[in-house]
Amino acid sequence: MIQRIDAGPRMSEATIHADTVYCAGQVPETPGADIGTQTREVLAAIDALLAQAGTDKTRILQAQVVLADIGDFAGMNAEWDRWVVPGQAPARATIEGRLADPGWRIEIIVTAARI
Amino acid sequence: MIQRIDAGPRMSEATIHADTVYCAGQVPETPGADIGTQTREVLAAIDALLAQAGTDKTRILQAQVVLADIGDFAGMNAEWDRWVVPGQAPARATIEGRLADPGWRIEIIVTAARI
Amino acid sequence: MIQRIDAGPRMSEATIHADTVYCAGQVPETPGADIGTQTREVLAAIDALLAQAGTDKTRILQAQVVLADIGDFAGMNAEWDRWVVPGQAPARATIEGRLADPGWRIEIIVTAARI
Repeated sequence: MIQRIDAGPRMSEATIHADTVYCAGQVPETPGADIGTQTREVLAAIDALLAQAGTDKTRILQAQVVLADIGDFAGMNAEWDRWVVPGQAPARATIEGRLADPGWRIEIIVTAARI
Repeated sequence: MIQRIDAGPRMSEATIHADTVYCAGQVPETPGADIGTQTREVLAAIDALLAQAGTDKTRILQAQVVLADIGDFAGMNAEWDRWVVPGQAPARATIEGRLADPGWRIEIIVTAARI
Repeated sequence: MIQRIDAGPRMSEATIHADTVYCAGQVPETPGADIGTQTREVLAAIDALLAQAGTDKTRILQAQVVLADIGDFAGMNAEWDRWVVPGQAPARATIEGRLADPGWRIEIIVTAARI
């Protein structure tokens, strides 16, 4: 059985199957804001979505960080390092790729365990 | 146990483990065609591959859409929205990234549930 | 329960849940080396990491290859094809994306089955 969170006509914000939560790419609330602000916005969106799915950031299995400009790597990490729980951090990869809204500097895709 | 579909020397078209189907990135049949045509080709390839794996588009958990030019976002969505079943859509993320064949405008990677 | 390999303050090298191993993006040891060298380094890092997780390259479910320059596609494949076990290859996708260190030409993200 598949459970879905915010199941819309184009995508769901998350799908849950076999105690694994697959999240849609989370994007910033404020296009054009700096990388610190946008990273905090995306991480807050992930926290909220994982809470809806009955899990939290200590149970993320894998994260893919996409930066519109890889030059934002250090700025993203400054926020990430404050947010993640040491010893309970996910496997992670970071790549550069332009995003659907030119005002977005970051998008993060996570997969988490529910139990 | 792992099941594989079209297991070749370089890659398999799909692998199946724990009722989860991991698909290779699906690419267009017609290099150089417009985004509408190429998106339809990729979505048809996904339908065919999921059928071989014993599942279908209503059971996709996660999709990553890669566009060679993010300017094709609206053109891709027009076909996607016609194809996806509202309320049963996957979690999705879209990024720009050049692809292995310069004639390909789109590649989609999906993970699906089998049961 | 989640198991982690090399759980650091920013990320884990791998997380394991429900007999599935999620690996961090593996990157080259030698920034600036050619694509052949860097691909061999990345594949060796994957071998070592999967061994720590109690599995191996014949049990990879999905691989995403990210090349800083898609022009390295043939050079990457030459090494990949020597490394992968025919008939037991994963589902795979390759995209271009700049990486965190400008000297890295390749990063590979894999998900594997443990049993």
